[in-house]
Amino acid sequence: MIIDCHGHYTTAPAALGEWRERQTAALGTPQAPPARAELRISDDELRETIEPNQLRLMDERGIDMTVFSPRASFMAHHVGGFETSAAWAAICNELCHRVSQLYPERFVAAAMLPQSPGVDPATCVPELTRCVEELGAVAVNLNPDPSGGHWTAPPLTDRSWYPLYEKMVEYDIPAMIHVSTSVNPAFHTTGAHYLNADTTAFMQLVQGDLFADFPTLRFVIPHGGGAVPYHWGRFRGLAMALGKPPLEQHVLGNVYFDTCVYHQPGIDLLYDVVPARNILFASEMIGAVRDIDPCSGHHFDDTRRYAEAAKLPADDLAAVQEHNARAVYPRLDALLARQDR
Amino acid sequence: MIIDCHGHYTTAPAALGEWRERQTAALGTPQAPPARAELRISDDELRETIEPNQLRLMDERGIDMTVFSPRASFMAHHVGGFETSAAWAAICNELCHRVSQLYPERFVAAAMLPQSPGVDPATCVPELTRCVEELGAVAVNLNPDPSGGHWTAPPLTDRSWYPLYEKMVEYDIPAMIHVSTSVNPAFHTTGAHYLNADTTAFMQLVQGDLFADFPTLRFVIPHGGGAVPYHWGRFRGLAMALGKPPLEQHVLGNVYFDTCVYHQPGIDLLYDVVPARNILFASEMIGAVRDIDPCSGHHFDDTRRYAEAAKLPADDLAAVQEHNARAVYPRLDALLARQDR
Repeated sequence: MIIDCHGHYTTAPAALGEWRERQTAALGTPQAPPARAELRISDDELRETIEPNQLRLMDERGIDMTVFSPRASFMAHHVGGFETSAAWAAICNELCHRVSQLYPERFVAAAMLPQSPGVDPATCVPELTRCVEELGAVAVNLNPDPSGGHWTAPPLTDRSWYPLYEKMVEYDIPAMIHVSTSVNPAFHTTGAHYLNADTTAFMQLVQGDLFADFPTLRFVIPHGGGAVPYHWGRFRGLAMALGKPPLEQHVLGNVYFDTCVYHQPGIDLLYDVVPARNILFASEMIGAVRDIDPCSGHHFDDTRRYAEAAKLPADDLAAVQEHNARAVYPRLDALLARQDR
Repeated sequence: MIIDCHGHYTTAPAALGEWRERQTAALGTPQAPPARAELRISDDELRETIEPNQLRLMDERGIDMTVFSPRASFMAHHVGGFETSAAWAAICNELCHRVSQLYPERFVAAAMLPQSPGVDPATCVPELTRCVEELGAVAVNLNPDPSGGHWTAPPLTDRSWYPLYEKMVEYDIPAMIHVSTSVNPAFHTTGAHYLNADTTAFMQLVQGDLFADFPTLRFVIPHGGGAVPYHWGRFRGLAMALGKPPLEQHVLGNVYFDTCVYHQPGIDLLYDVVPARNILFASEMIGAVRDIDPCSGHHFDDTRRYAEAAKLPADDLAAVQEHNARAVYPRLDALLARQDR
């Protein structure tokens, strides 16, 4: 089977965006923000946004199951404070949960966290707990820069993040490292900020020794790891200069890269330098790049074609497409086992 | 011949660092900063820092000529204000000029600019002029983030940068886009900030239409273009989504990538996706990564080995190693012609 570990609900019904607009419009005014219960979206409306979009493409591309989380660029943790993010994360997470209930063999939920710039990450633990225990989440998305491109948060190796890591370890769930919209005009959101965050997070992990404290903690770095595999020699050399063990020992027991790289030479390089056990199939559709590549005649984000054209040994391809995801997301594996898959 | 378009004076005599320490110690105190004339470094001292270091490695690796600029991480434009950067840039540029005079067939100067956060880039024009007209500079290094990792400057397409571009066009010199030390704990300087800046700058150029205003302006993006070639499909797709022409038409008439990528698969990918005419040989030695790669037995930054192992057609290899640099740096070409090379 083929598991896509990186899908976002980018096609949610317009009512969701309208609720968010009312919430943000109320900020800094005496008006109360809308109540969560004021958002009403029927199951049919969910189906109408999923079936002609993600589900259609999954069927066309032979993707069996997608780890499905709220739209990354809409997380916008920089907006408002903790209460703003708490209400917003709650309703976004509930929608992904409902999609996973409507199509239990095709989607499984991953949660966004109610992060807010300058607010203790420990405040996200209750929503993480709720998502895992009540909404079936098998992973979380963790934003290393809740400020939206100002990078005011400490590195991921800082102890302020530890309460989240403790809970992730307790539930045996991984985090995908994923920023949201950039409000810094220097950074285009999907063309710079996302890739920079991937590179930045990886280097923070190389600089630190986080996995000595959390030997079973697991991070998925999306977008093929940002600049990292292309500069694998540079990172190997920097690890040496920092007196760290080789990357394989230092971080590759805990860090995984997805395959959201939208051309064949990039994917070929990823498979060439990163061990197959550290690569997870993903497409991020429907996401940043939606057109058809005039060079190939196929969608840029039809990443299954690249994976299969890379001519990996069959065992490695099966690891990338299925087995690694089942190992990195044990709650997904348990769900699939319950479904006899 | 082989031209290395990216070398920094990372081995300058200790007196330079001591002068800088006195300058920064005086900031915010009633003390006057040291005068430029207080820095005294003899020609022999320069020779002692160049001959066993950059010049030795150039000889070992068969590099004929290096475009030589002040140490990037020491530019530290975030320190002090315009006057601080002006004095510091002046003495750093003079040292590179003196090295180019001691070894006129091996080094040619490129200038750092006296940038300062929040200060109009037009204030850098006098130093640019002095470096080209009096110090023989064939290029400048342009820092898109003088704040040192806080990214407070507008994108490179903003009109505030135009006075610099007008002068670059007048002198027909390119700029290498190069940040300096990160003082933001989120970003490791050479493992994240440098690569992020390369990716960020490229995406700013894709978003804008700068080369419609400056058809002959030329930028060199170092470190192999950050994440860009690895994600070439993503950038092609984002250009389409933004309604821009294909990257070849939109930016590749004006943007070049260097070969500071420290392993063979990365260099192979660079040659695979970027036209050979847009690639300039470089090693950035002695720079960020100084060790010997245990996988190859050679220095990570011995990039000539990768270039030649990539088995480019002979014409393309000559373009990358020599002819492109002569086209992108016409003042270097004129110097070489005067030397009958």
